[in-house]
Amino acid sequence: MAKEFVIKVPASSANIGPGFDVLGISLNLYLTVTVKIDPVAFGEESRKDPNNCIIVYEGEGIEQVSLRSDENLMVQMALFVLRSNKVRTFPLGTRVSVHNQVPLGRGLGSSGTAVVAGVLLANAVGEFGFSKQRCLDYCLMVERHPDNITATMMGGFVGSFLRKLSASEFETVHQPLNHLLSPEDTSVFPTDAPLNLGTHVQYSWSPKIKCIAVIPQFEVSTKLSRSVLPKSYKISDVVFNLQRLAVLTAAVGSENPSSDLIYPAMQDKLHQPYRTVLIPGLSSIVSEFTPETHPGLLGICLSGAGPTILCLATDNFDKIATDVVARFNKENIECRWLLLEPAYDGATMEEMSKL
Amino acid sequence: MAKEFVIKVPASSANIGPGFDVLGISLNLYLTVTVKIDPVAFGEESRKDPNNCIIVYEGEGIEQVSLRSDENLMVQMALFVLRSNKVRTFPLGTRVSVHNQVPLGRGLGSSGTAVVAGVLLANAVGEFGFSKQRCLDYCLMVERHPDNITATMMGGFVGSFLRKLSASEFETVHQPLNHLLSPEDTSVFPTDAPLNLGTHVQYSWSPKIKCIAVIPQFEVSTKLSRSVLPKSYKISDVVFNLQRLAVLTAAVGSENPSSDLIYPAMQDKLHQPYRTVLIPGLSSIVSEFTPETHPGLLGICLSGAGPTILCLATDNFDKIATDVVARFNKENIECRWLLLEPAYDGATMEEMSKL
Repeated sequence: MAKEFVIKVPASSANIGPGFDVLGISLNLYLTVTVKIDPVAFGEESRKDPNNCIIVYEGEGIEQVSLRSDENLMVQMALFVLRSNKVRTFPLGTRVSVHNQVPLGRGLGSSGTAVVAGVLLANAVGEFGFSKQRCLDYCLMVERHPDNITATMMGGFVGSFLRKLSASEFETVHQPLNHLLSPEDTSVFPTDAPLNLGTHVQYSWSPKIKCIAVIPQFEVSTKLSRSVLPKSYKISDVVFNLQRLAVLTAAVGSENPSSDLIYPAMQDKLHQPYRTVLIPGLSSIVSEFTPETHPGLLGICLSGAGPTILCLATDNFDKIATDVVARFNKENIECRWLLLEPAYDGATMEEMSKL
Repeated sequence: MAKEFVIKVPASSANIGPGFDVLGISLNLYLTVTVKIDPVAFGEESRKDPNNCIIVYEGEGIEQVSLRSDENLMVQMALFVLRSNKVRTFPLGTRVSVHNQVPLGRGLGSSGTAVVAGVLLANAVGEFGFSKQRCLDYCLMVERHPDNITATMMGGFVGSFLRKLSASEFETVHQPLNHLLSPEDTSVFPTDAPLNLGTHVQYSWSPKIKCIAVIPQFEVSTKLSRSVLPKSYKISDVVFNLQRLAVLTAAVGSENPSSDLIYPAMQDKLHQPYRTVLIPGLSSIVSEFTPETHPGLLGICLSGAGPTILCLATDNFDKIATDVVARFNKENIECRWLLLEPAYDGATMEEMSKL
C-alpha cells in the first residue's frame, strides 16, 4: 500500500516595480518535495513524531528550517489543511523529502513556496482532489498577501486580490496564525476555509523576456522591509504607480516587448524609494541601469521585499547581471545571479506509483 | 482652392472604478467638426475675426460655448498647434461647423474632445501630417491628465501615463495655460511640444460588453470634484485600488467576461467615496447595483469626475439603466441614459473633397 508523489513548487518575484502587493511572477527555481507513504518501511520511525511525519531536507535553508513536524512551515500548513478536512494527522509512515532551490529571506517567495507545498502535500496525502483554486483558499488563510502565493500556485505572471468577506468569514480568516498553524488542542478541527478567497488574472508574457535575479548574500525580513514604509502616501505618488501598473501588465505580453514602454512602466514611488535604507545601492541600481546603458534590458526592480534585484531583459543577460553584481560589490555586498523564466505551470503534483 | 474635411472625436469615460487618472474608454458619442476653407465663399466674413475663423455650433453646450475664436477651447487649441509650427493663424475663409453630442461637465470627457478636435483641426488646416502619437503631444501640453485624452485620440480602452521630462522640457510643458491658449502677442511662436509625452497601451475589450451611461441633469466641474479628494491615502486603500486595477484591465478582454472578476475589480477607495458629497445617491448606487440584483451587470462606477454613472453590462441594459435613473430620481435628480460602446477608432479626420 506504499504511495509516492512529487510536488514541485516554483519560487516567485512580487511587486515588479509599481505592482506593490499586486503582481507576481513564478520563476523556474523550485522547492521539490518527494513524499512517500509506506507504513512498512517508515511506520516505526514515523511513530516517533506526534504527526507521523519524517522530514528530510537538503538545499537552501538547511541551517534555518526546523525538521520538527510541529515547527516546519510546510508541514504545519499541511496539517492545518488536513485538520480543516477532519483528518487529524498524516498517515503512518509518511516521509517527506525536501529539496529546496529557493533561497530564504531574499525576496523570492520562499515562504510562499513552503505554504503552497504544504497545501499540495495535504491535498495529496488526504486524497481530497482539491482544484488549484481551492488550494489557494487554504494558502490565503495563512498568507494574506496574495501576490507571491498566487504566482507560485497558478504560474506565469499574475495580478490578484482578496475578496470582501462576510462577518463570519472574516472571523474565520483573521485568526492569529498560531491558532491555525500551532493549535494547542489538535483534536479540535478548525472551521474550513471560505471558498474563492482570491481573485486573479494571468497576463500574457512574451517568451522573449527572461528574468535575471541578482541575489545578494544577506537576508531582509519581509516584516522589517514593511516597517520602513510610510503610513500614508500623497495622491501624485499613488497615481504614478497606478498609471505604470496599468501599462506594465499589458506591455510584457507584446510579441516584441519594448523597453520604451516597459522601462518607464516599471518605475515605482510606493516602496522601493523607502527600502533603499535596508538595501545599500538599491536606489542607484534601479536608476542607473537603463536600456541605454544596457541594451536588452527592459526594466529593473526590487524582487518582493528584497534584497534580490530582478531585471527583465531580452538580451545581454551576462553583462547586465555581472554589472549589477559589480555595483553591489561596491557596497561590499557579495551576490550570485540566476537567469530564470516564468514557471508557467505553477505548482504541480505528480503521483509516481501506486504499488 | 476650397477644401473640406470632417473631424469626428468620441466622448470618453475615465477612471472606471480603481483606475483613477489612469484608465479611459472612448465612447461612440461624438463631437463632429466640418471644416471648410473657401476664401471665395467665406473670405470676407472670416476677415472680421482676428484669426480668420468663423465658428458655427449646434448641439450640447450651445448656451455655454463661446463662438469667438480667441475664447473657444477647440479653436484656441488649434491656434496653439498652428503657432507651435510657425503658422500664425487660420487660412482666410476658414469656417468651422461644430455638431456636439457630448454633454458638458458630466464626466464624459467633453473638454478632452474639444482639445483633441482642436489638434486635429490644426493638423488638417496646416497640412502637417502629424501622426496620432504626435497629435497627442500637443493635447498633453494643455491637458496633463492623459486618461480621457488618450482614450479619445487613440480609441478603445486604454491606460496611460506621461513620461519624465528633462528640465527644459519641464519648462516648456508646465507653462500657465493662458500662455499657450491666450497669448498676448500672437506673433511670438511658442516652443514646440516635446516628442512622445504620453505612453499608453490599448487593452482588449470583449465586444459583448456595452456601456450604459446614466447622465444626471446637473454639472460637476472637474476642479470641484478634485477639491473634495483627501491630501493623502493610507497604504491599504492604495493597495486595494492597485490590485483591482491590475485585474480589471485584463478581465474585460476575456471572450466571456465574468462579473465574478469584473464587479469586484471595479471597486474603488480613492475617489468615489469622497465624491458622494457632490453626487447624491452615488455611494448607494455603486454598492446596491450588483450582478445579483441586476443580471447582466458586470460593474458600475462613476464616469470621470461625475456625475454620470457608467455601467458595464452584457444584458438587461434597459432594466439596469432605468433602475439607476429611478434611484437618482429619489434624490430629485433627473437623468437621461444612453447605450454606448467603445469608439475603437478614436478620433478621425476625413478629407471630403479638393476642388
